Amino acid sequence: MEISWEQSVTYSINTIYLLFSAYLVFVMQLGFAMLCAGSVRAKNAMNIMLTNVVDAVVGSISYYLFGFALAFGDGSNSNPFIGTGFFALKDIPNSTYDYSYFLFQWAFAIAVAGITSGSIAERTQFSAYLAFSFFLSGFVYPIVVHWVWSSSGWLSPSSSNLLFGSGAIDFAGSGVVHLVGGVAGLWGSLIEGPRVGRFDAFGKPVPMRGHNATLVVLGTFLLWFGWFGFNPGSFDKILVAYPNTTDQGNWTAVGRTAVTTTLAGSTAGIVTLFGRRILVGHWDALDVCNGVLGGFVAITSGCSVVEPWAAIVCGFFAAWVLIGLNSLALKLNFDDPLEATQLHGGCGAWGLIFTGLFAKEEFVIQAYNSGMSSVGRPYGLIMGGGWGLIGAQVSELLVIVGWVSVTMGPLFYTLHKLRVLRIPVEEEIAGLDISSHGGYAYVAHPEENHPRLYADYMRLQDNNRV
Amino acid sequence: MEISWEQSVTYSINTIYLLFSAYLVFVMQLGFAMLCAGSVRAKNAMNIMLTNVVDAVVGSISYYLFGFALAFGDGSNSNPFIGTGFFALKDIPNSTYDYSYFLFQWAFAIAVAGITSGSIAERTQFSAYLAFSFFLSGFVYPIVVHWVWSSSGWLSPSSSNLLFGSGAIDFAGSGVVHLVGGVAGLWGSLIEGPRVGRFDAFGKPVPMRGHNATLVVLGTFLLWFGWFGFNPGSFDKILVAYPNTTDQGNWTAVGRTAVTTTLAGSTAGIVTLFGRRILVGHWDALDVCNGVLGGFVAITSGCSVVEPWAAIVCGFFAAWVLIGLNSLALKLNFDDPLEATQLHGGCGAWGLIFTGLFAKEEFVIQAYNSGMSSVGRPYGLIMGGGWGLIGAQVSELLVIVGWVSVTMGPLFYTLHKLRVLRIPVEEEIAGLDISSHGGYAYVAHPEENHPRLYADYMRLQDNNRV
Amino acid sequence: MEISWEQSVTYSINTIYLLFSAYLVFVMQLGFAMLCAGSVRAKNAMNIMLTNVVDAVVGSISYYLFGFALAFGDGSNSNPFIGTGFFALKDIPNSTYDYSYFLFQWAFAIAVAGITSGSIAERTQFSAYLAFSFFLSGFVYPIVVHWVWSSSGWLSPSSSNLLFGSGAIDFAGSGVVHLVGGVAGLWGSLIEGPRVGRFDAFGKPVPMRGHNATLVVLGTFLLWFGWFGFNPGSFDKILVAYPNTTDQGNWTAVGRTAVTTTLAGSTAGIVTLFGRRILVGHWDALDVCNGVLGGFVAITSGCSVVEPWAAIVCGFFAAWVLIGLNSLALKLNFDDPLEATQLHGGCGAWGLIFTGLFAKEEFVIQAYNSGMSSVGRPYGLIMGGGWGLIGAQVSELLVIVGWVSVTMGPLFYTLHKLRVLRIPVEEEIAGLDISSHGGYAYVAHPEENHPRLYADYMRLQDNNRV
Repeated sequence: MEISWEQSVTYSINTIYLLFSAYLVFVMQLGFAMLCAGSVRAKNAMNIMLTNVVDAVVGSISYYLFGFALAFGDGSNSNPFIGTGFFALKDIPNSTYDYSYFLFQWAFAIAVAGITSGSIAERTQFSAYLAFSFFLSGFVYPIVVHWVWSSSGWLSPSSSNLLFGSGAIDFAGSGVVHLVGGVAGLWGSLIEGPRVGRFDAFGKPVPMRGHNATLVVLGTFLLWFGWFGFNPGSFDKILVAYPNTTDQGNWTAVGRTAVTTTLAGSTAGIVTLFGRRILVGHWDALDVCNGVLGGFVAITSGCSVVEPWAAIVCGFFAAWVLIGLNSLALKLNFDDPLEATQLHGGCGAWGLIFTGLFAKEEFVIQAYNSGMSSVGRPYGLIMGGGWGLIGAQVSELLVIVGWVSVTMGPLFYTLHKLRVLRIPVEEEIAGLDISSHGGYAYVAHPEENHPRLYADYMRLQDNNRV
Repeated sequence: MEISWEQSVTYSINTIYLLFSAYLVFVMQLGFAMLCAGSVRAKNAMNIMLTNVVDAVVGSISYYLFGFALAFGDGSNSNPFIGTGFFALKDIPNSTYDYSYFLFQWAFAIAVAGITSGSIAERTQFSAYLAFSFFLSGFVYPIVVHWVWSSSGWLSPSSSNLLFGSGAIDFAGSGVVHLVGGVAGLWGSLIEGPRVGRFDAFGKPVPMRGHNATLVVLGTFLLWFGWFGFNPGSFDKILVAYPNTTDQGNWTAVGRTAVTTTLAGSTAGIVTLFGRRILVGHWDALDVCNGVLGGFVAITSGCSVVEPWAAIVCGFFAAWVLIGLNSLALKLNFDDPLEATQLHGGCGAWGLIFTGLFAKEEFVIQAYNSGMSSVGRPYGLIMGGGWGLIGAQVSELLVIVGWVSVTMGPLFYTLHKLRVLRIPVEEEIAGLDISSHGGYAYVAHPEENHPRLYADYMRLQDNNRV
Repeated sequence: MEISWEQSVTYSINTIYLLFSAYLVFVMQLGFAMLCAGSVRAKNAMNIMLTNVVDAVVGSISYYLFGFALAFGDGSNSNPFIGTGFFALKDIPNSTYDYSYFLFQWAFAIAVAGITSGSIAERTQFSAYLAFSFFLSGFVYPIVVHWVWSSSGWLSPSSSNLLFGSGAIDFAGSGVVHLVGGVAGLWGSLIEGPRVGRFDAFGKPVPMRGHNATLVVLGTFLLWFGWFGFNPGSFDKILVAYPNTTDQGNWTAVGRTAVTTTLAGSTAGIVTLFGRRILVGHWDALDVCNGVLGGFVAITSGCSVVEPWAAIVCGFFAAWVLIGLNSLALKLNFDDPLEATQLHGGCGAWGLIFTGLFAKEEFVIQAYNSGMSSVGRPYGLIMGGGWGLIGAQVSELLVIVGWVSVTMGPLFYTLHKLRVLRIPVEEEIAGLDISSHGGYAYVAHPEENHPRLYADYMRLQDNNRV
């Protein structure tokens, strides 16, 4: 059988859309690297950037060999708990998955460990990081993906056996990606404990600011840019027309998803700007950056199924979730250098709930039934859609917290007990870069600091002229 | 009525093209942030980056609520001066505008305030900045957009009632975006006056270099990257075939627009490189960056309607416009830290004139009449196209200068009189970051500067081994 | 004749794919600028960034005027050695080449000089750089492009007269781009000699680290992002269906190319991480970055014609090629500040060989005969494809080394003899930025380093309050 022209056009359009979205999601890895680097002290910048590079390169090989298989390997003997095919891309491409789909999912997988790297920054042995990153992105995360995003998953909103008749709607992964990373970070930073000097003898927090705010802003904007791949890209296909409309299809929903994403992040940013102005008395750029990211994390679950005005509601509460959890963390002497637990964990959890409250019927059917209006299915509780969806959302939330806790908790605890998790205190004071990575990230060359040298140089020049 | 496959394909292709272009335009916001940060002193880096973040987040909400409505809200009771529909995206999507169009226009809107932020850098109160940014991107700018880019605008080149039988051709906004930002910057920096110490008691300029040239180059390249969305993306649709051709359509013109953009910026860069070499005696990287940007600003109006060779002419003169205005600014003791008035204002104005001189008939018909060769309309004066187009171009230029002056001038003056525009001199000397934003952008940690510490650490390690 | 709807769709899809790929390739110029800046000492940062900007702006004009013509100007009197048409884009667009193709090729052309700029960093006169950059990207490189990538080239894999019945497969340019840049860099750094102080009196290397590892990581990730345009984009067209398949076409191969690229770079990164850990005893982030880039350079030739598992083989050996050549360079007192000779030259050469060994028949036919399975042609030696391909690959390798040596060698030597190549030793010690570019890249402002000032400021504030 030959391929028809119509099919060729469809494949080409959808591949362009998905591949370029994947490239944008990949940019988030760079965004994380810059955000993390700027948020730590200069003596640990090289270390945390290396963890981001390593997430990408190790994640590529592990996701190729088995990560993708555990997540999407359905085939004939599919089961709701774990994938069992497509190891090392065997049988790819097939009628369901092309290489572009693998690449899009790969870009998601490498992001997860990047989230957690922030939680355990500035005090983790690099070899422990390698073990953790490999285990999280190669095993713990793909299993969750299988549950929620593969068509045979028990939480999936598009399986033949929908949980509560609904399945969980976690469109681009407030839960699957961000909550997973955040809960892992929670256990990592709990078990490692705060950085040396983060809290004084009376438990009062001592400011420990990152070394470079420019990198934080750079990272935030790059993450924003990448989120345009993350959320709108998660439709996988753009050429899907909706029946009973004259001009709508996935292209409409893709654009709307970009808009809801933008509005949620922006609202959270504004709320943080004014909220922190009132609370701490100055306009804090770094808080605003984190606020914007918190808004993105929260909308990631429902971005495709809510109205733009609801995205504003989402972002508004996301900002307060983040501000509240940050206050709580200080009170509890909990030290997550990047606020990853609070931001990705807290706002990710809120995002799952939000979707259960505000998902709109029409959009849910667009996203999960190609807009076929004859289909009836649960949607947001506040929108009149009943308890099915919110039930599934809460289930996903609880199950992710449980699963990541019973896998990553013991891993961190074992590494801790084996004394390979945290670096010695002298190394922490000197900085990871000099102790583990051969030198600091920034190298000053004395001649540049000596105006004398320049004077001498000018004199030499003059002499030469004479 | 159902949607046909042909329509679905058309919508999908055009949406991919427009959305990814919008994402690139958004990158310009990051480009501006880095360019501005690098061009100011380190003590104000956090402040200016926050203004760029705030332009984006505040602009998102204001453009959603009313900015887009004032610009494109035509509907049944359209008028040539102001839009009146689509508030809070009501009635979007419709047969004319989808979400992707909103997002593309949103990315333009947030850029405008970013331009002006450079003019008033290093000395403006943050609360005044909020007021100015909100007013400019929420009201002043959308009105100009309505005039030139909405089909009912009185300056529009595609309305049913063309000014001088032509309408103004400002394809991607040398006038609408850059001149608006530049004129606002002119009034802002005039009313604020120069930074403390910028000119000595005799009016001689004192060098006040930015703190980080790497950020300037980073920002410039990011802006270049983003301009590939800004200019080629402004066709809105790529799947438009031209009659009477065998292989041409908007896809050809989109590519040509990327080429003219590249050539204009490159030419302006080269001219600035050699021009400044002759004038100041060294090869100045920062001048070249500004030269490249000046070329982009100038070609933005005519990028779609001129031949590649004409783009070189455009860039050549753009460089001299910038060099000339910069000299003039120094003579007049005018202080715009980012040269935004000269660059976006001066080169933007030149761009409008340039289009009136060099627009090619065939390309004008392609861009504004889908290539229908039966249509006759004015084009570039030098190309034999008569006075209609250049007349409309000069009208747009004068009207923008007037409109922005009568709106932004009084705003800045009122803020000035209320003593909320400029920060106190002590704060200016200490820097905005420490006075308004809670701390400097760069935090040094003493241990990193003490090689002794590293020695101690090595000693400790040795002791441990023994 | 009118253009059909099917043709319009095809042109639109292919143009979107090619143009956005070109934009990504352009990002590599920014990637190089950041990588280079971070890898040199701060006193030369402005200089090397300016070289990257100049490569772009000078390359735009030269490629427009004659570079593209020498490379692809076939027309009626085509010949296998040099192109002869399309000067200044005359006769463009035509049925073969649209503007988008020019832009894609332009982005490649400006990258070449950027590679070499790293080899001669920190010691080259800027005017010499201008001459070299213009000659390399305007003449030496386009000739090689004509040989390998134009349909009339004598090394082309798609000409009517295939060398060894095969032609060389250098899909995205391990040879055409990277080896050309690397060999030029070899001659440049050989003739200039090592930087002052790079080797001591006994020939022992003295560490001379770059000033900013953050920029190195930023540059590496940006290059990775750009490589998604470089390699998958090199199909030029995505809407090409393969006969005798039900769902495959260039869209499949484009995705697979993105995957092979990712796997090769990732493997090389991992091998470098552990290899260097064993060799030097620490986890070196900068080595890993270079390793990743080495993997990308190597896979660039065969990315479209090998299986994902083979890409892992490619990356594995690329890492050792780089590690080995770096050791050799130290022994021979060869100083290439960016390792460009070793990385782009060495891994580029390995990439050409690799393709000759591992190219898969089916994929070669897909890439060069639109998947028409009736075609028989040589493929990888190890895959059973005979000696034709490997013979052509070795031919390309040798001929590139020869051609670049006989052109760039004499150029560098002449500049050297005229005493305009290398800067005087005093300038080298003071740094190029202060001697040639008007000042250092980083400007400290004393007030920021004086905590006293802040104290004073706070006191002033308090006084005001009283």
